[in-house]
Amino acid sequence: MVIRSTTMTHPPSSAAALSFTETLSLLSLSLASFAVIANTFQGDGAPLVASLAFSGIAFAGSYSMIRWLGPTFMKAGLKGKDMSKLHKKEIPETMGAVCAVVYILIVTVFIPFPFYKDIVAATSGGGNRDVVQETIEHVQRGRFLHKFPHSKLAAYLSAIITVQSVSILGIGDDLFDIRWRHKFFIPGIASIPLLIVYFVDFGVTHIVVPIPLRPYLGELLQLGVFYYLYMFAVAIFCPNSINILAGVNGIEVSQSLVIAILLVLNDCYYLLVPYPHPAVDSHLFSLYMLLPFIGVSLALWCHNWYPSKVFVGDTYCYFAGMVFAVVGILGHFSKTLLLLFIPQIFNFLYSAPQLFRIVPCPRHRMPRFNARTGLMECSVTEWQYPPKPVVAKVLKLLHRLNLLRVETNSQGQIVESTNFTILNLWLVWFGPKREDRLAIEILVMQFAVGLFGLFARHNFALLLFESDNLNV
Amino acid sequence: MVIRSTTMTHPPSSAAALSFTETLSLLSLSLASFAVIANTFQGDGAPLVASLAFSGIAFAGSYSMIRWLGPTFMKAGLKGKDMSKLHKKEIPETMGAVCAVVYILIVTVFIPFPFYKDIVAATSGGGNRDVVQETIEHVQRGRFLHKFPHSKLAAYLSAIITVQSVSILGIGDDLFDIRWRHKFFIPGIASIPLLIVYFVDFGVTHIVVPIPLRPYLGELLQLGVFYYLYMFAVAIFCPNSINILAGVNGIEVSQSLVIAILLVLNDCYYLLVPYPHPAVDSHLFSLYMLLPFIGVSLALWCHNWYPSKVFVGDTYCYFAGMVFAVVGILGHFSKTLLLLFIPQIFNFLYSAPQLFRIVPCPRHRMPRFNARTGLMECSVTEWQYPPKPVVAKVLKLLHRLNLLRVETNSQGQIVESTNFTILNLWLVWFGPKREDRLAIEILVMQFAVGLFGLFARHNFALLLFESDNLNV
Repeated sequence: MVIRSTTMTHPPSSAAALSFTETLSLLSLSLASFAVIANTFQGDGAPLVASLAFSGIAFAGSYSMIRWLGPTFMKAGLKGKDMSKLHKKEIPETMGAVCAVVYILIVTVFIPFPFYKDIVAATSGGGNRDVVQETIEHVQRGRFLHKFPHSKLAAYLSAIITVQSVSILGIGDDLFDIRWRHKFFIPGIASIPLLIVYFVDFGVTHIVVPIPLRPYLGELLQLGVFYYLYMFAVAIFCPNSINILAGVNGIEVSQSLVIAILLVLNDCYYLLVPYPHPAVDSHLFSLYMLLPFIGVSLALWCHNWYPSKVFVGDTYCYFAGMVFAVVGILGHFSKTLLLLFIPQIFNFLYSAPQLFRIVPCPRHRMPRFNARTGLMECSVTEWQYPPKPVVAKVLKLLHRLNLLRVETNSQGQIVESTNFTILNLWLVWFGPKREDRLAIEILVMQFAVGLFGLFARHNFALLLFESDNLNV
Repeated sequence: MVIRSTTMTHPPSSAAALSFTETLSLLSLSLASFAVIANTFQGDGAPLVASLAFSGIAFAGSYSMIRWLGPTFMKAGLKGKDMSKLHKKEIPETMGAVCAVVYILIVTVFIPFPFYKDIVAATSGGGNRDVVQETIEHVQRGRFLHKFPHSKLAAYLSAIITVQSVSILGIGDDLFDIRWRHKFFIPGIASIPLLIVYFVDFGVTHIVVPIPLRPYLGELLQLGVFYYLYMFAVAIFCPNSINILAGVNGIEVSQSLVIAILLVLNDCYYLLVPYPHPAVDSHLFSLYMLLPFIGVSLALWCHNWYPSKVFVGDTYCYFAGMVFAVVGILGHFSKTLLLLFIPQIFNFLYSAPQLFRIVPCPRHRMPRFNARTGLMECSVTEWQYPPKPVVAKVLKLLHRLNLLRVETNSQGQIVESTNFTILNLWLVWFGPKREDRLAIEILVMQFAVGLFGLFARHNFALLLFESDNLNV
């Protein structure tokens, strides 16, 4: 099989300029978006429409900047070699930082839109000014405090701080190549603003107990500090799990896009049910965070999909995972969120033997490129010393269950085993494949599993809980 | 004169380890700080005491990390040569990023402290729970909304977002060496969160008119969009003005420390006046932001003062300037703030002919090191072509006023002029000096001018306004 990278019509990756068609399309998209935003100032602000338009600008902005900044990143040493190609040329790395900066700017500028109605109602510039001033003028300030959704604003701001923190630390990680056991906690540090503002402004730490457990635990369970530990764990898990499901072109961005799109579908479900659902506000918040995320991620995807013209860097994985964690935590649907992370959870659990050094762990565990066939094959770790008997027994069992492939020498000792990642396992199951084919199959599986998760959640949840989730 | 850098007892700058004495001192400081913080949980939270203790931790944290991360920064290419030394060895650069990250973490973790009283009052965990629950239990939620100072929290969060934004963009600037005409607007972009939250949550855009102007303008003047332009200008000016008053070891951090200390003195004035001043809250906010800033800056100062063992990078200048801008804008004392920037304002105006290319501007305008004497001398720019007659006339007038030094050739044409910075002007006035001596003299001048500014503000302001500033 021949690698057909030349059959795709890309501009030469050395050129940092946008082609004429690209310029024209991005300009039209931006202009259309600006026009839509300008129009939302009439009526009641239409924040969802504005958010969609802002996402268009986010796409156009990051698409252009990723292209323009390529050479600058290379010059600053932010570059890497793509090991899974015949010609291993260097391409820009850490491009997720561009996405993160554009994203943060866009969600910041968007802040006034969801609060437009409240601003108009509470200040003298607005539509129902007369009602306020004539009837209850003397308690206007009190009314203003009641009306203005301050804790929504604080939630929104803490989300931005958290995403910013993880981006700063992610850039540090990409610059300094921090060790695995340290970088694991980076998202934890970045989640501190989220937990602190949650503590100060909301402080809701009880959960609804599933019906079968109510005789023992009551209707509501006060978790207290454990609730914070749970949020902390979610914030650490989401970014890291995306970071370790990596190794073939485009898989980091694509898996994030799949999760984001499934979350958006879930949000739309709440907006479209016939009665106004009590959790509508949470899911609007989720949409405001996710739509621009999809915008910047699509722009990165165009440059990062096979054959990659840029790498995303750890910054992108942290940034993406933290957006999901923030949305799940502040929207109070972190259990649903985890349903969409099933492939990542599996990959994390499957990776655990190597992450915790029960099995030797090389620096890179991604599938191996076979230059002769042009296909990706599962990568292996050689055992310098044969494993302990109990480990050997488990590995051989996994081999027999087709969950691993081990090679033994003439004495029956294990000399090598495939690396413990879902990508390698997929290659064990279905044999060598071209890089993009492998990515597509994993993504289709992820989308299917996620859809099933959402289906299960909306159809079977009422077996466990007496009502769908309430807005807290 | 001999350069006596060896008479100062520093650990060898290649060693990234802390000395035993340093470890012991920093550990004691940290432990003492933690003890103080733990104690503030009793009583009503004592946020000011906690803030002091957090600043101690900020100092210890950044001091250690600046030392430890030196080799890591060098390896990542973040390094620079000190041109004003006999042995021009390379030292780590961009260490301001460490300060910014530690600062952001500290001010984030500090958030619950100023709100401790409100949290206790509003939740069931606190002291006066009975009062709330027994008397007006049914309106508890309304009371909570009234009581909890949400807009203080939003202000605090927007301050953090802004400082974070300018730090991310500053790191980008240090990595990519952005052009002067682009980097000038970096703080402007970073100030967007501040302006947006100000717009959404406060929206106060009127100013008190000075008494002499009241017959024409009225008592309050509604500035509207111009108020935002003014805040935008302050946010652009403060970071950039610190960034261009640079060029000798330690001057960026030292001038920031002088400004911070003067601002703290000003804040204390409001806390110590016999009657509770209406602006107390603003100045408490200012202290909460400035004390940890002084902590991280002192730690950087220890490494950056003559002879420098690390450079601060543009990141520090942006970070420092933005902390001041945020404090001044959200505390509503930006006019007082600008009084403390008089040397920087002078330097900016004096630099204008070079910044706007009326006079040729070399890449570096810092004073020149004379290797023979070991002293700093004013640096000059050579005129490849003689200046236009009108420019020549102005330059010669400045020369006669002792505000510049020009060299002319036999035909009376200007062939070189000193660079337009306050440091060079000081050397024109007082002759060559050793690097640290020059820095100290500039700092003493800055402190004296600042003190006089504060004195004038508190004694003469009542000639222009009928009352001291009110809490808006």
